[in-house]
Amino acid sequence: MKHSRSPECEVLFPVGLTSGDFSFGGGSSGRSMDSRAGLAATPGALPYYVAFSQLLGLTVVAMTGAWLGLYRGGIAWEGALQFNVHPLSMVIGLIFLQGDALLVYRVFRNETKRTTKVLHGLLHVFALVIALVGVVAVFDYHRKKGYADLYSLHSWCGLLVLVLYFVQWLVGLSFFLFPGASFSLRSRYRPQHVFFGAAIFLLSVGTALLGLKEALLFKLGAKYSTFEAEGVLANVLGLLLVGFGVTVLYILTRSDWKRPPQAEEQALSMDFKTLTEGDSPGSQ
Amino acid sequence: MKHSRSPECEVLFPVGLTSGDFSFGGGSSGRSMDSRAGLAATPGALPYYVAFSQLLGLTVVAMTGAWLGLYRGGIAWEGALQFNVHPLSMVIGLIFLQGDALLVYRVFRNETKRTTKVLHGLLHVFALVIALVGVVAVFDYHRKKGYADLYSLHSWCGLLVLVLYFVQWLVGLSFFLFPGASFSLRSRYRPQHVFFGAAIFLLSVGTALLGLKEALLFKLGAKYSTFEAEGVLANVLGLLLVGFGVTVLYILTRSDWKRPPQAEEQALSMDFKTLTEGDSPGSQ
Repeated sequence: MKHSRSPECEVLFPVGLTSGDFSFGGGSSGRSMDSRAGLAATPGALPYYVAFSQLLGLTVVAMTGAWLGLYRGGIAWEGALQFNVHPLSMVIGLIFLQGDALLVYRVFRNETKRTTKVLHGLLHVFALVIALVGVVAVFDYHRKKGYADLYSLHSWCGLLVLVLYFVQWLVGLSFFLFPGASFSLRSRYRPQHVFFGAAIFLLSVGTALLGLKEALLFKLGAKYSTFEAEGVLANVLGLLLVGFGVTVLYILTRSDWKRPPQAEEQALSMDFKTLTEGDSPGSQ
Repeated sequence: MKHSRSPECEVLFPVGLTSGDFSFGGGSSGRSMDSRAGLAATPGALPYYVAFSQLLGLTVVAMTGAWLGLYRGGIAWEGALQFNVHPLSMVIGLIFLQGDALLVYRVFRNETKRTTKVLHGLLHVFALVIALVGVVAVFDYHRKKGYADLYSLHSWCGLLVLVLYFVQWLVGLSFFLFPGASFSLRSRYRPQHVFFGAAIFLLSVGTALLGLKEALLFKLGAKYSTFEAEGVLANVLGLLLVGFGVTVLYILTRSDWKRPPQAEEQALSMDFKTLTEGDSPGSQ
């Protein structure tokens, strides 16, 4: 049995709020639905959570720099310090910038969809380029030192993240930025894109924790258990990485913080619905 | 401006599908909405994903046992082998059982809500008890050997997981199992419970990866880079842990796989809505 939706329902429950997407939590009321019927005000608490996420993210970047500066001799492309380019680049690219790319649709709520998409795609490009510099640094360092590559769980997870990240970016680009993909195809792919985007981000955070642990154990060894200052600082950095990951995931997955469909998008979506009786574009 | 919902909308969009909860992906069509209006058939692909998750979860448990048996001398409560109780208990309790506890609402779709809740709560109790055995094992082993406790990032994350797990269980029990909490309070807490449940589960997986890495580096040291059999097996185990985590998260967060509200629950929820004009209980 297929129910038909009344026009009133269409407005109250605009595209993008029904089944087929991914969600935590089943139950909630219809609170703040009214804000979705047009240009919406930013939800009250959202800016504070976004500010908190940025504070955490910047602290993570600064603390990685402080760790490398205080205990690892700083950063240089030549010589033994080349290794240190790796953790800093990965944290800036695959943690901070990747996290912020996921938040673009929550922060820029009233820009056009196209502008937001371009910003989202560009942030991911920056993240990938900076991450590639970090990857080149570690391979180059290993080569010069005669160390083996890709033997550790950290490196396997890292390789997996890079491949998935690149594939996700390419598929995302072809679906959302080029005009070729139909609305129906897009709206079926969208929740998959968002799920795998979140999963790749979380795997990036996990990979960073593994790398941090590896760097600590290689250098400190048994001294790690004597609460050396470097060990404690790195542990705190690890917890802050976890905190940034959880905060970004929270902002990303709260349904009532999603980007509302804009007036013209909604009109277009309803026109399209009428034309195709199929899927229609919604908020992301 | 507050829109009122027509009774038709109430049936088409039963409680639990609107804003205020957590979700990946904004856009999707109204596909399979009809199945939510009463006792629903199990979505076609769900059993395969659940079977795959169980295959992954059991493989992770078996492989942890194989790793400890083949390379670490097996398991015993007395002597040097007491340490090995720790990884096996944690993987059974905080990975496999915790993951399965999250899936209870997806698997038991037509049992009463109360039965499902009790099973969910009991699985979490089993998981916590088995995890506590694993925690006692490692503290007892450290004490006998004179090793320091709680110095590593693995142990800090583990402690955080245990505290959050216990708090989440207590708060969940008081909200959902005891009759005291109002429906309004429950439905506002529910998405938070589900988000933090998923976050704690993912942090458990991350903590297991850190522990695995620690165990490898302490024993293998530089030999880890020569692709020793134990290192490769443990790396594969690490990737399988990631796979189990992602699969459980996928099943948990897909909106159209959520447990539908049952006929009597829905009737009750609508009665309640009429009575209170507030929130009402929905699917989880």
